Amino acid sequence: MKKIAMVAFGGNALLRSGQKGTYQEQLANVEQTCEQLYNLLDQGYFLVIGHGNGPQVGTVMLQQEAGRQLFNLEAMPMDYCGAQTQGAIAYLIEQGMNRVLVRHGNRRRVVSLVTQVVVDKDDPMFRNPTKPVGPYYTREQAERFQAETGAVYREDPKGNGWRKVVASPKPVRINNLEIIRQLVEVGNIVITVGGGGIPVIENGGILSGVEAVIDKDLASALCASQIRADALFILTDVPKVYVNFRKPGERALDVITVEEAKRYLAEGHFTEGSMAPKVRAGIFFVENGGTECVITEAGQLDNPSCGTRIVRQ
Amino acid sequence: MKKIAMVAFGGNALLRSGQKGTYQEQLANVEQTCEQLYNLLDQGYFLVIGHGNGPQVGTVMLQQEAGRQLFNLEAMPMDYCGAQTQGAIAYLIEQGMNRVLVRHGNRRRVVSLVTQVVVDKDDPMFRNPTKPVGPYYTREQAERFQAETGAVYREDPKGNGWRKVVASPKPVRINNLEIIRQLVEVGNIVITVGGGGIPVIENGGILSGVEAVIDKDLASALCASQIRADALFILTDVPKVYVNFRKPGERALDVITVEEAKRYLAEGHFTEGSMAPKVRAGIFFVENGGTECVITEAGQLDNPSCGTRIVRQ
Repeated sequence: MKKIAMVAFGGNALLRSGQKGTYQEQLANVEQTCEQLYNLLDQGYFLVIGHGNGPQVGTVMLQQEAGRQLFNLEAMPMDYCGAQTQGAIAYLIEQGMNRVLVRHGNRRRVVSLVTQVVVDKDDPMFRNPTKPVGPYYTREQAERFQAETGAVYREDPKGNGWRKVVASPKPVRINNLEIIRQLVEVGNIVITVGGGGIPVIENGGILSGVEAVIDKDLASALCASQIRADALFILTDVPKVYVNFRKPGERALDVITVEEAKRYLAEGHFTEGSMAPKVRAGIFFVENGGTECVITEAGQLDNPSCGTRIVRQ
Repeated sequence: MKKIAMVAFGGNALLRSGQKGTYQEQLANVEQTCEQLYNLLDQGYFLVIGHGNGPQVGTVMLQQEAGRQLFNLEAMPMDYCGAQTQGAIAYLIEQGMNRVLVRHGNRRRVVSLVTQVVVDKDDPMFRNPTKPVGPYYTREQAERFQAETGAVYREDPKGNGWRKVVASPKPVRINNLEIIRQLVEVGNIVITVGGGGIPVIENGGILSGVEAVIDKDLASALCASQIRADALFILTDVPKVYVNFRKPGERALDVITVEEAKRYLAEGHFTEGSMAPKVRAGIFFVENGGTECVITEAGQLDNPSCGTRIVRQ
């Protein structure tokens, strides 16, 4: 009985705070994560990996800005930068997973797809971009860029300067979905929707890049549901989801239904920008065909009943 | 009767000299190239695309250097930079080809793989790196980097400063070859071996990145031969290969055998770093199972007997 798991982890699984972010550090970090993911192969899952790119795309955007200032190089839009990080991060994950597979004598192949994800050009988020990205600028620079490019810049609330803000629209369709499904069905480990996917809008079948950030957990949930994966694993830095997190009455959740998850969300138990979008991604997956969504940390994956599990009922 | 063509074109098919290299310019350039490639689909070929990354990886390395100077960001090795350009260029080609396919009402899918290419760790080129890459430095900087990293720096013959030089080893094996073959056999247009592939050495099954540049025509020839393609198209900026190029007795070549190609090479008719490696890639392909290698410019592809054709006999 073939079971497919989609796993989503953050770009900080590669580039950890406190480290300089060298190539060797990132490779060692990702190899550790892949060793932990290997437990899912041991549990009989076929594997699709979605990953974030927050720290990496931030670095690319800073490098683009530095290249503009020092060498007058043309800075590229975010969709292009996102595509760059898809190539680079997929390469590192392929390298890390390859080492783990060789160590276990496992001959599965790892294959990475450059992946565009379609968003709705009328998504209301485009009228209210809120996600700050890239370098900080002075007010004068920000006003000039805004006039030149039409991009929106906002002042950082902590007073560090002005930053571009982009929309975070909902993913609507994963490009090349059938190919992802075909590749994983025959046993390949597939890496896709890096950084939430390269955001594109569709017009008469033509895909065009837009400057935006798609939530990687939501993109992974959509991908998981559309390839009819059985389980979605959303990796984070805590073993379980909590109600009353770091407050009196804190309680770790083991198995919860979609209804319970929605109630806890409504009651404000989960932090926006952190646990709340993960729980929403889990709800989306289970409401759209998935059996269960597991939210946990990678180090727990050796335990088949680890984490917080969102199930239908 | 299914026929597979592998096409190799340079990174300058996207980023042309005299242009600033904006995203819109690169996209327009690649769309034009894809429209010309469409002739091959019309001629009944299934298509695999290999591409260079010269201008793009040069830009990335400059941006890395600028980020190091301005923001103290960690500069990444060339294999990582190459992976970045694979993601970005594949994304642009996917976008350009998508527009062309929609225009022609063709429902083929375009799929891009992040591709590692194995080189021999004992390749003699590693003992004599000759390919200059990345920014120019002062002698003092170059000596410091050389001491810190072990990379080799040489003085530019034109007096522009010192640059890193890397090896250009022969491609030995294309990673995930079976997957490329499977994807193209069912009609997908596959983009792979970007920039000649991410160079890796293999040790007990473990692939590790190395700083090197693999010739993209040779990597495409190897890929074409290993997926058992029928034809290899190497695109350049002249319609045919010439003997006595720009000299008395100049003559365009139509169809030549491998033996003739070897003789012309030995006689020095083809410039190193330009036409000579393309002819060598063509010879390799035809000697390793290919029917013909066509060297021409993209604008000629509407003529099924265009270019210079290297055939077995």
